[in-house]
Amino acid sequence: MRVNNIHIKNQSHALSYISIYNNHTLVALLEIVKIGIFKCGNIGVSPIFELLLDELAQREDITVRTVTTGSKMGVKDVEEALPKLFEFDPDLIVFISPNPAIPGPATVREILLKKGVPSIVISDGVAKRIKDELEKQGLGYIIIMGDPLIGARREFLDPTEMAIFNSNVIKVLATTGVLRMLHQEIDRLVAILKEDLPLALPRLLVDTDVIRDNSDFQNPYAKAKAMAAYELTKRVAEIDTRACFIEKDREKYIPLVACAHEIAQMAAKLAEEAREIEKYSDTLARKPHSKKGEPLTKTKLMLPPTVDKKIYQRWLKASRA
Amino acid sequence: MRVNNIHIKNQSHALSYISIYNNHTLVALLEIVKIGIFKCGNIGVSPIFELLLDELAQREDITVRTVTTGSKMGVKDVEEALPKLFEFDPDLIVFISPNPAIPGPATVREILLKKGVPSIVISDGVAKRIKDELEKQGLGYIIIMGDPLIGARREFLDPTEMAIFNSNVIKVLATTGVLRMLHQEIDRLVAILKEDLPLALPRLLVDTDVIRDNSDFQNPYAKAKAMAAYELTKRVAEIDTRACFIEKDREKYIPLVACAHEIAQMAAKLAEEAREIEKYSDTLARKPHSKKGEPLTKTKLMLPPTVDKKIYQRWLKASRA
Amino acid sequence: MRVNNIHIKNQSHALSYISIYNNHTLVALLEIVKIGIFKCGNIGVSPIFELLLDELAQREDITVRTVTTGSKMGVKDVEEALPKLFEFDPDLIVFISPNPAIPGPATVREILLKKGVPSIVISDGVAKRIKDELEKQGLGYIIIMGDPLIGARREFLDPTEMAIFNSNVIKVLATTGVLRMLHQEIDRLVAILKEDLPLALPRLLVDTDVIRDNSDFQNPYAKAKAMAAYELTKRVAEIDTRACFIEKDREKYIPLVACAHEIAQMAAKLAEEAREIEKYSDTLARKPHSKKGEPLTKTKLMLPPTVDKKIYQRWLKASRA
Amino acid sequence: MRVNNIHIKNQSHALSYISIYNNHTLVALLEIVKIGIFKCGNIGVSPIFELLLDELAQREDITVRTVTTGSKMGVKDVEEALPKLFEFDPDLIVFISPNPAIPGPATVREILLKKGVPSIVISDGVAKRIKDELEKQGLGYIIIMGDPLIGARREFLDPTEMAIFNSNVIKVLATTGVLRMLHQEIDRLVAILKEDLPLALPRLLVDTDVIRDNSDFQNPYAKAKAMAAYELTKRVAEIDTRACFIEKDREKYIPLVACAHEIAQMAAKLAEEAREIEKYSDTLARKPHSKKGEPLTKTKLMLPPTVDKKIYQRWLKASRA
Amino acid sequence: MRVNNIHIKNQSHALSYISIYNNHTLVALLEIVKIGIFKCGNIGVSPIFELLLDELAQREDITVRTVTTGSKMGVKDVEEALPKLFEFDPDLIVFISPNPAIPGPATVREILLKKGVPSIVISDGVAKRIKDELEKQGLGYIIIMGDPLIGARREFLDPTEMAIFNSNVIKVLATTGVLRMLHQEIDRLVAILKEDLPLALPRLLVDTDVIRDNSDFQNPYAKAKAMAAYELTKRVAEIDTRACFIEKDREKYIPLVACAHEIAQMAAKLAEEAREIEKYSDTLARKPHSKKGEPLTKTKLMLPPTVDKKIYQRWLKASRA
Amino acid sequence: MRVNNIHIKNQSHALSYISIYNNHTLVALLEIVKIGIFKCGNIGVSPIFELLLDELAQREDITVRTVTTGSKMGVKDVEEALPKLFEFDPDLIVFISPNPAIPGPATVREILLKKGVPSIVISDGVAKRIKDELEKQGLGYIIIMGDPLIGARREFLDPTEMAIFNSNVIKVLATTGVLRMLHQEIDRLVAILKEDLPLALPRLLVDTDVIRDNSDFQNPYAKAKAMAAYELTKRVAEIDTRACFIEKDREKYIPLVACAHEIAQMAAKLAEEAREIEKYSDTLARKPHSKKGEPLTKTKLMLPPTVDKKIYQRWLKASRA
Repeated sequence: MRVNNIHIKNQSHALSYISIYNNHTLVALLEIVKIGIFKCGNIGVSPIFELLLDELAQREDITVRTVTTGSKMGVKDVEEALPKLFEFDPDLIVFISPNPAIPGPATVREILLKKGVPSIVISDGVAKRIKDELEKQGLGYIIIMGDPLIGARREFLDPTEMAIFNSNVIKVLATTGVLRMLHQEIDRLVAILKEDLPLALPRLLVDTDVIRDNSDFQNPYAKAKAMAAYELTKRVAEIDTRACFIEKDREKYIPLVACAHEIAQMAAKLAEEAREIEKYSDTLARKPHSKKGEPLTKTKLMLPPTVDKKIYQRWLKASRA
Repeated sequence: MRVNNIHIKNQSHALSYISIYNNHTLVALLEIVKIGIFKCGNIGVSPIFELLLDELAQREDITVRTVTTGSKMGVKDVEEALPKLFEFDPDLIVFISPNPAIPGPATVREILLKKGVPSIVISDGVAKRIKDELEKQGLGYIIIMGDPLIGARREFLDPTEMAIFNSNVIKVLATTGVLRMLHQEIDRLVAILKEDLPLALPRLLVDTDVIRDNSDFQNPYAKAKAMAAYELTKRVAEIDTRACFIEKDREKYIPLVACAHEIAQMAAKLAEEAREIEKYSDTLARKPHSKKGEPLTKTKLMLPPTVDKKIYQRWLKASRA
Repeated sequence: MRVNNIHIKNQSHALSYISIYNNHTLVALLEIVKIGIFKCGNIGVSPIFELLLDELAQREDITVRTVTTGSKMGVKDVEEALPKLFEFDPDLIVFISPNPAIPGPATVREILLKKGVPSIVISDGVAKRIKDELEKQGLGYIIIMGDPLIGARREFLDPTEMAIFNSNVIKVLATTGVLRMLHQEIDRLVAILKEDLPLALPRLLVDTDVIRDNSDFQNPYAKAKAMAAYELTKRVAEIDTRACFIEKDREKYIPLVACAHEIAQMAAKLAEEAREIEKYSDTLARKPHSKKGEPLTKTKLMLPPTVDKKIYQRWLKASRA
Repeated sequence: MRVNNIHIKNQSHALSYISIYNNHTLVALLEIVKIGIFKCGNIGVSPIFELLLDELAQREDITVRTVTTGSKMGVKDVEEALPKLFEFDPDLIVFISPNPAIPGPATVREILLKKGVPSIVISDGVAKRIKDELEKQGLGYIIIMGDPLIGARREFLDPTEMAIFNSNVIKVLATTGVLRMLHQEIDRLVAILKEDLPLALPRLLVDTDVIRDNSDFQNPYAKAKAMAAYELTKRVAEIDTRACFIEKDREKYIPLVACAHEIAQMAAKLAEEAREIEKYSDTLARKPHSKKGEPLTKTKLMLPPTVDKKIYQRWLKASRA
Repeated sequence: MRVNNIHIKNQSHALSYISIYNNHTLVALLEIVKIGIFKCGNIGVSPIFELLLDELAQREDITVRTVTTGSKMGVKDVEEALPKLFEFDPDLIVFISPNPAIPGPATVREILLKKGVPSIVISDGVAKRIKDELEKQGLGYIIIMGDPLIGARREFLDPTEMAIFNSNVIKVLATTGVLRMLHQEIDRLVAILKEDLPLALPRLLVDTDVIRDNSDFQNPYAKAKAMAAYELTKRVAEIDTRACFIEKDREKYIPLVACAHEIAQMAAKLAEEAREIEKYSDTLARKPHSKKGEPLTKTKLMLPPTVDKKIYQRWLKASRA
Repeated sequence: MRVNNIHIKNQSHALSYISIYNNHTLVALLEIVKIGIFKCGNIGVSPIFELLLDELAQREDITVRTVTTGSKMGVKDVEEALPKLFEFDPDLIVFISPNPAIPGPATVREILLKKGVPSIVISDGVAKRIKDELEKQGLGYIIIMGDPLIGARREFLDPTEMAIFNSNVIKVLATTGVLRMLHQEIDRLVAILKEDLPLALPRLLVDTDVIRDNSDFQNPYAKAKAMAAYELTKRVAEIDTRACFIEKDREKYIPLVACAHEIAQMAAKLAEEAREIEKYSDTLARKPHSKKGEPLTKTKLMLPPTVDKKIYQRWLKASRA
């Protein structure tokens, strides 16, 4: 599975695609799609990304291998660790990193391009400014505007605070549907790879309007609360950026990081509230994976999920178009 | 850094140590300790473990490399992925897995023993039954009784629900101080490795009494609430085990997994409440890492942290004893 | 009304019955059924048990008389107090006690058997171990697994704490439907006594599955939260047992009882939340008694209740079977 | 122990006493004080009253026997049940009833006077209007203004709703300190009886000002919240009285009883909040009984209670005065 | 527009009307109705009253001019400020004041009567006692029983506390539907003035029963909670009255005002809860004004509002009757 | 009291002053300072502004008169209404308006300048862009960045929603200390006017850093939560601006305004939480006015306030400087 030719479709909204035509024919090899994940530094979705793809640990159609450099993001770290991922011979690579423009992650992108494996960059709001560059490079991307920078000041952040912050961010990303979009994009690519159809890598900037227009909420107030939660994590990003990079005086930045993390906690509460609303009317959407990796869907808690043929057909159709 | 000789100390309580005398002398090499992490399947601490060691991404005394098999836990997955970790030539290996007794993880343990790198198994309550075996094998271990099995039923669990569950578990583990114990054990080993002293690998079963006797809470009610939160996650483990492995009828297991996840959410709330109490009197303990990896400590929010010499000396002294 | 003959039906699940055939014919006497209640020590349902039978204080078909020994449970207390109940010539006796195996309560059971009045033991989880004995003795029983031991340590428990604990337990037992089961069993027996049909005394172990399978909740998440609340009170029982009987050191047991009572408080909150869900969709079931003691039922708040003929017929039919 | 002579002290405030001089000398008999409790109908404190006197079930200086008529309050019920209590030969009688002016309870009072055992009436706000009569009769009384009438309308009240209401009321009465006052008054009388000193029966009208002036709260906002909770239960009483006795139309009284019970729930929440404040600063007062029945006291959770000599001396001194 | 003739209709319930026949014919002038508002002292609705009439700031059919005397209520303040309002030549005057019986506000009423402009007094519960006088004077009135006196004690009240209290009161008045009644009464009068029909000024005492019988809630428990919130603000009024005017001792009145404001905060929470219920089922009623001032109505959030013809016709019809 | 000469001091931070030297000598006239308030349109502080100056309605040193144009902001409205304020001959004018750049409010500014009465503009974040212009004009200003635009869409906003939004905003502005800054600035000017010292009108842009550096919170987490609440209202402003002026499609703007108002509600909750923290340690600052208008201050609830001489002297000193 190698990328031969890249055709960028006309993009008129937040979510569009880079089409990649492949001339690969060994369908048999792709009964199992191999997904390589490279993490370099940490964003909110990093810790649980691979779990999203196989939450029940029962999928038989994918193999996932992850290599990470921990919180280190140096060029040397990258050069040492990334090659390990290619030994796994992945069909698709997901590269998750907080700031894909700095030297280390930039090196990752270069290596990815050289290797020619279809690759997607998943990053936070900081990546917005290299969106055009990513498109030119033929890399897919999912930029999560509401995946905020942490309050990285030594007077404030310790491992406990860090974990709690991540807990809050994960809850917001899960409840608002951002994680749903993430796994569905990968699910879509896996489906296309299995069908040996032309790949269209995602170009997705996840801002509040994307949540508004794509979430699973049935109740409009639940959706409004989820959007509110997402707006809050975006604000966290802005405040922490100021606290970490602009304010120099301890008296000034400590209250700011503390303030940002309080907002993160409130965002998690709002997100939880949104989800509770759907529970109250038993309309909470659930979309597990089948063993074969098919997208399933259900709402009423006591009923079983069924295959979501609509979304599956849409994926393939879009790929064929 | 190779393990030559294992002497098991007399253990009188939950937290004791396996002493490993090493005859290593190349201290210079260990200005930077290389920590290899192997994840096979997922438990609550898996997603954020490496972040705990370097929450500010500024430590200069460690390098961390992680290899994972995703949610897959087969022997083949292990045999393919684990060797990649040894290419990194780690000084210390942390192996995180939900059920270290089944074939895949058992293979990991065998390989670890063969390679002779000091290794620690981090696992959940299920591992309690192979505690003796681990001790005989000379592996360190940290068994987290309150890191619960997820409600892995397809009618209930989807990527969103999975992420929310992990969010709740992370919050409980962070707030109760379990994550603190985890990183401090690794910090201790790193300190000893840097000093070239005899290694004593942890043998730690983290039950509620460990939280009672070791947490950072100043307010006794905050501690009681944290303990309560931990008891709740333990209950989640029991209920989910029943729902996943014993009940066969959908009408029976769906309410059980839903019930277990409601408890997990409540546990997170209780944990948060415990932490709020300490905020209310500005006595929340924070223990970040310095750039050199020293343990720092502080309570009053507006004051800077200082090096926690007491704990550091205790670590070295215990190692020398 | 005397018990003549006991036939134990085949029991295949948690709720089964001991059938007692009576040859009593004086129906006229039973226009009013006399219920004698003997309380010896206290469990969560003790304080409000008789109120459950006649919540509106308007029933004309029963007379209730209670005799208690306070918190004392000695043989002497029992021998002095219990005879007073027989002076009331009850048709049915309900004996409520926390530990029916110890000497005092055991004496009660012996006297009950000697007197031959149909009798039911209501107790908490501790009684589970004498379940078989109770069945052999021909006593009915309702064992409430989620009616927890209190944190009876003098450093912690005072009258205020005790009352708050009972308040929380009562809320959980009410909201989860346990109190409903209790009064319906007595209502059923009263109905049968009035019809002069064979009595089948209840043999009911109220564990979480009974709540799952018998509660009035319309919303499955409300039911899950109620089950969660019940699981929590069961955990309270376990922790308090440890704190009261195993731990000897003040430093160890105080945090445990405090922890247990925090869980009880959280259980009450969860239970309340469950009930709120039903309010939100106006589907909260209410089952008051009519003046004649008939079971009534309703859901929509603004509508009047109607006689629940289905349950009534089921009672009589089961008795005739 | 018989009452021979009653001298009513000058009363200038809410809490005053009726002094009863006794010429009893058989001190030996009173190593154990026998307390007889008669309940006729139900108020909020009824269900748990005897538990308040011996919350740890370890007191050796009192014996308690309770006889009740359930929710029935007829003259016949009283005449049949009350004599059973005298067979116990009580040194002190506590009579708990919601409306001591109506025929049944009035009969109780007459019998109590005839028998000459020192007796205290505990009742709710309705009893305020017979306060003078109670004083003339030489009966002690504790009238609890915030112990509200339940919403006794069949469209609304069922056993579950009844229990929840009682749960909420118990929580308010406990947290605000009303139950403390109750047991301390009985404790005081027991102490006096054991010392064979002149008895002064309480004449106590528990309104919000009594809570303001007598509660154990250290934090003034906690006290304000507790007072607020009590004010709310008083409002519940007013609304339920209107809903039960004045409004005749279902459309009118159903919303009123529902409204009143919502207030009761909110009152319980406020009360809980008040108690949490004291937990947050570890200043929660606890006042358990010793085995000998002495009043103990403590605040810091981890410390043991000590005998409250001050209050004990005050009791005896006041009695001697 | 001058009032010529007053006919008081027979009043059988809380909401009735004073009919005022006018012989005015210059309809053209009233394409825009001029509403003069005079505020003298402050009650809960004062701060936002004029905003209620034109919440979108787009109405073209009314002009509003407000003159206030701040918190001062002296005769001199009134005599100086009120004339300014008449320079505006209003068609309708709304006079808002906390205590319309004292000299300053009484002077306002006299001046209003002299000027002959149709006028409505809006006041709090204190005004209830001059209800008859207002009717005799031919003034319309809306007396809001749940608009409470503030805790005006210098040890407690400062500008921050005052604003928070007003915030809570506004939330209760909004959520319970009291503000809806206020603006609909004015909307009705504006409609009638525009149609040149006989004016019927409102005589409305807003007690809890008015909320019960007139609110927009679809869920009966939401309504019960709203009623509960209103009952709470009524209680606030009673407690603050005592604290401000009866208790003289600081030790006594400080806890009372603090208690009252805690109740106000709880009332706001209850009110919010009531509104949330309607959000949960997407049945929240919204009744904005059209540009022409027509009453619009809607429930489902995502749908547009439509003209509420029913209420409009009822207004005109009632006026013609 | 006329402004003669304006000297703009060097400004180095958010809060600086425009000094106005006056040559006024008739001190006697200013025993009572006359404050004229002109409101044109509405912002969050508008409804309660004058109440802040005299929360206890007992000040004898100021007279306040307010004239408003309701929600109308046209030039004609202004020209008609504003002159009424000058008839009151104010010593100081406060002009409150949401958008001081548009024609109506611009006209107000021109008139104010022409009249020469010292004037302050209070406005929301929109005014930031005319800050320089205001300074050049010699007008004082207080620009409240966290006083947000309302969600003015007819599908969403009705009088009830409007009032609730204002309630939430008022709570945030009060709790964060913004209202404190407002009244203290006016108090300062009143003090200076009474002393006949040179007036320095405020030039204050209230952003989160001002709250951080000037609030009364003792607990740093309380301050962080308050800052968080303020950040949230700032976000509300941004979202509502987009929803009201940019998005044209109902499907797009309805969720946005709903989202913004959910954030406002959450901001109010956070603010309340911040204040509760101070209550929990009895450190809540209260700063009422004395009858003479002196600034008082206190913290412990049960103690009386004392004159805050420090702040008073600072005011006068700064003015003399």
